[in-house]
Amino acid sequence: MALRYDTISFLSDYGRTDEFVGVVHSVIRQLAPQVRVIDITHDIPQCDVRAGGLTLGRSAQYLAPGVVVAVVDPGVGTHRRAVAIEVDGGQSVLVGPDNGILAAAVAVAGGATRAVHLTNPDYQLATAGSLFDGRDVFAPAAAHLCNGVPILELGEEISTSSLLPGTLPIPERTDDGMIVQVLWIDHFGNVQLNADPGEVAEMGDVFEVRTDARSRTVRRHDAFEEVGLGVVGLVLDSYGALSLVCNQASAAEELGLNDGDSLTLVPLDPDSQEVSSPTQTTSGTNTAPETPSEGTPVRLSTAPQKR
Amino acid sequence: MALRYDTISFLSDYGRTDEFVGVVHSVIRQLAPQVRVIDITHDIPQCDVRAGGLTLGRSAQYLAPGVVVAVVDPGVGTHRRAVAIEVDGGQSVLVGPDNGILAAAVAVAGGATRAVHLTNPDYQLATAGSLFDGRDVFAPAAAHLCNGVPILELGEEISTSSLLPGTLPIPERTDDGMIVQVLWIDHFGNVQLNADPGEVAEMGDVFEVRTDARSRTVRRHDAFEEVGLGVVGLVLDSYGALSLVCNQASAAEELGLNDGDSLTLVPLDPDSQEVSSPTQTTSGTNTAPETPSEGTPVRLSTAPQKR
Amino acid sequence: MALRYDTISFLSDYGRTDEFVGVVHSVIRQLAPQVRVIDITHDIPQCDVRAGGLTLGRSAQYLAPGVVVAVVDPGVGTHRRAVAIEVDGGQSVLVGPDNGILAAAVAVAGGATRAVHLTNPDYQLATAGSLFDGRDVFAPAAAHLCNGVPILELGEEISTSSLLPGTLPIPERTDDGMIVQVLWIDHFGNVQLNADPGEVAEMGDVFEVRTDARSRTVRRHDAFEEVGLGVVGLVLDSYGALSLVCNQASAAEELGLNDGDSLTLVPLDPDSQEVSSPTQTTSGTNTAPETPSEGTPVRLSTAPQKR
Repeated sequence: MALRYDTISFLSDYGRTDEFVGVVHSVIRQLAPQVRVIDITHDIPQCDVRAGGLTLGRSAQYLAPGVVVAVVDPGVGTHRRAVAIEVDGGQSVLVGPDNGILAAAVAVAGGATRAVHLTNPDYQLATAGSLFDGRDVFAPAAAHLCNGVPILELGEEISTSSLLPGTLPIPERTDDGMIVQVLWIDHFGNVQLNADPGEVAEMGDVFEVRTDARSRTVRRHDAFEEVGLGVVGLVLDSYGALSLVCNQASAAEELGLNDGDSLTLVPLDPDSQEVSSPTQTTSGTNTAPETPSEGTPVRLSTAPQKR
Repeated sequence: MALRYDTISFLSDYGRTDEFVGVVHSVIRQLAPQVRVIDITHDIPQCDVRAGGLTLGRSAQYLAPGVVVAVVDPGVGTHRRAVAIEVDGGQSVLVGPDNGILAAAVAVAGGATRAVHLTNPDYQLATAGSLFDGRDVFAPAAAHLCNGVPILELGEEISTSSLLPGTLPIPERTDDGMIVQVLWIDHFGNVQLNADPGEVAEMGDVFEVRTDARSRTVRRHDAFEEVGLGVVGLVLDSYGALSLVCNQASAAEELGLNDGDSLTLVPLDPDSQEVSSPTQTTSGTNTAPETPSEGTPVRLSTAPQKR
Repeated sequence: MALRYDTISFLSDYGRTDEFVGVVHSVIRQLAPQVRVIDITHDIPQCDVRAGGLTLGRSAQYLAPGVVVAVVDPGVGTHRRAVAIEVDGGQSVLVGPDNGILAAAVAVAGGATRAVHLTNPDYQLATAGSLFDGRDVFAPAAAHLCNGVPILELGEEISTSSLLPGTLPIPERTDDGMIVQVLWIDHFGNVQLNADPGEVAEMGDVFEVRTDARSRTVRRHDAFEEVGLGVVGLVLDSYGALSLVCNQASAAEELGLNDGDSLTLVPLDPDSQEVSSPTQTTSGTNTAPETPSEGTPVRLSTAPQKR
């Protein structure tokens, strides 16, 4: 039997301690034995739809065409809709709860071309409870789609405009810089920001990074290798986004940042001071006067600041 | 070459930090290249045969027919037997140590139809030590079974009645309710109990859940969506078992329960009071008289109660 | 299309929380759909090239012939070389950074027969940043090698003698014994040492194990099953290396040992005392005179000893 799709990419917040991921693989294996299942990650923080959506969005451009199953689903067992969203005229289908988790990936793929509410019980597992839709609803839908079942068979078509959008914070320009948000802190402590790299480049090459607790001067670099050992720098990361990184250390730790935190990027006069080794402001000791340069808004590190 | 079995489902307490799981996959890949290996989980708590057996038992009905390898093996390197157990007249074979870990899954499959002690060195890897039977004994046995090697080739047949049974705690009826045990606390904090759902339904709709440290009133619901936000309820879980769940929070945390704990379900008169928000008993303050109603044993929730 | 290699074995320090591992799988899936990817482990401690190299070296003899991708890469984005190393006349190729991580596995395979610096952009993904060579350089190289692209197409050939070697600590003989190093502590707390098992066997059967904080008498056993319950013993582990193990407990915990620690093995007169239960040296209390026996250097265990 020729498969309509031969790869299912699978992301969830199931963790790997329980058998949930293995059972989903097993259900797919029986319904569509030839399909390969690729685990993106199952360690999305519990019920963190935002983190799941961002992870899926980052991954989207690298995933094999086929079906994507994404399950971070605090509303399982309630009235939220289970959906399948076709993108790129059918090149791929994204399956999961309609809670925004699929939105970023759908956007990366150029937007939804069709969507279905997964209501047809013929393509679901009968089950006593209703708490494991990954196994009972999403995995069977994905497997049947791979087998060539038309998406419209899986339930009633719904308007793509009715799908819950994802929400992305927008950077905010202020008098002296830009307030940005931490989108993601990876395993190595790199800090991805929601700032537009081009816009930041226009602001300058040296910035004060101001968080609630700390202030630090960082330089924007064209290449990671220009960031000195143990120094925090601003670079384009491997997804083309602007990230704070620290050569062989954790930028998140150096800056005391957590996922979702806000921070302010304040452009500095590149000549006014060296990019410093790790520093922490002590209240009352920074008495440097402001020395704005021409062209870009520039501002010396604020004083005094406290942890 | 036509495979006798094409899927190996694999569960262990190996963790994923070492290379153990990958090496087992590699051994199978070389002996039976066409076989798909599905990881159920490898995060069973170290040497916890009970948890491994329960996990395998829950998963069993969803696993693809084929070979199951389950290795939680505190007795590795000693005289415990390595076994292969055929079920369902050969539809599947379960491979692992004879320490009870396979028992629940064998029972789900309708019982053992044949069993073999894995003693034939021709179907094992030669090895210096004797501490990695997953690699040296179980993986090769599974791969050879997939390749069509008859089970009786792998060693000497043993009586299925000689296999070590699993042990499941039995709920205990008391004067005022039922003492039950926690079988499993999942990643989301749902608490699966060993109580028969039908028997509990006959006892009533509202219960006091009494643990060593706390008491809490919970309602039995037909559907998860009826459980209010942050409220603990009793529902059929996705395996058809009775579970304490908390809508968008951890029931285990709310109730202070751990895997293996005992608790008492005491039926309450549903009209005598509202299902309460979280409460905790304080010793010596429970002076409420028992006011049994007719029909089912009923008991008022303790009062006063404090968090 | 006939594949040149059909298996890629993949090890990294990426962890499984981010999407990195899944994205690498996805890239390979698209470039070489028929290839099977086997995850050895992705939980090598961050940037710990030594641990990654040792893990790969231990695994090497069990891996399916094909391509190995190993990425523990503190120098990513700098001028360290990305390489492909052919072993065994082309039976396998190891791909990764040239930082020593591949060295032990190359040695197990009999040494490098050819090596290439991965410089040809035609076989890499174009990318904004330069921080994810697993995705952009190593995975594509592995996939293209599987597809039959000649290794010399991937970049410029380099001398195999220019490859960075791994460094393994050498045990050191002292007047009264041997200073050895902990190579690995596995999930179960077994402690693999860098001592030659034959050389230790010649030293005797009973040893004092002296760490910075503790001293303990252990016996060398031919089989794990001879190690009593809760007792620490010296055995050949499942890789043929000498390991300190504890029957149903963690030897590392019993001895207070960490990865990379040094300890001293001091042979004892086997008749002078029983193998003791857990002991710990207290500074200043060791007043026992040395009483060497003939033949092998022997030393009494310190006394008195307290936990």
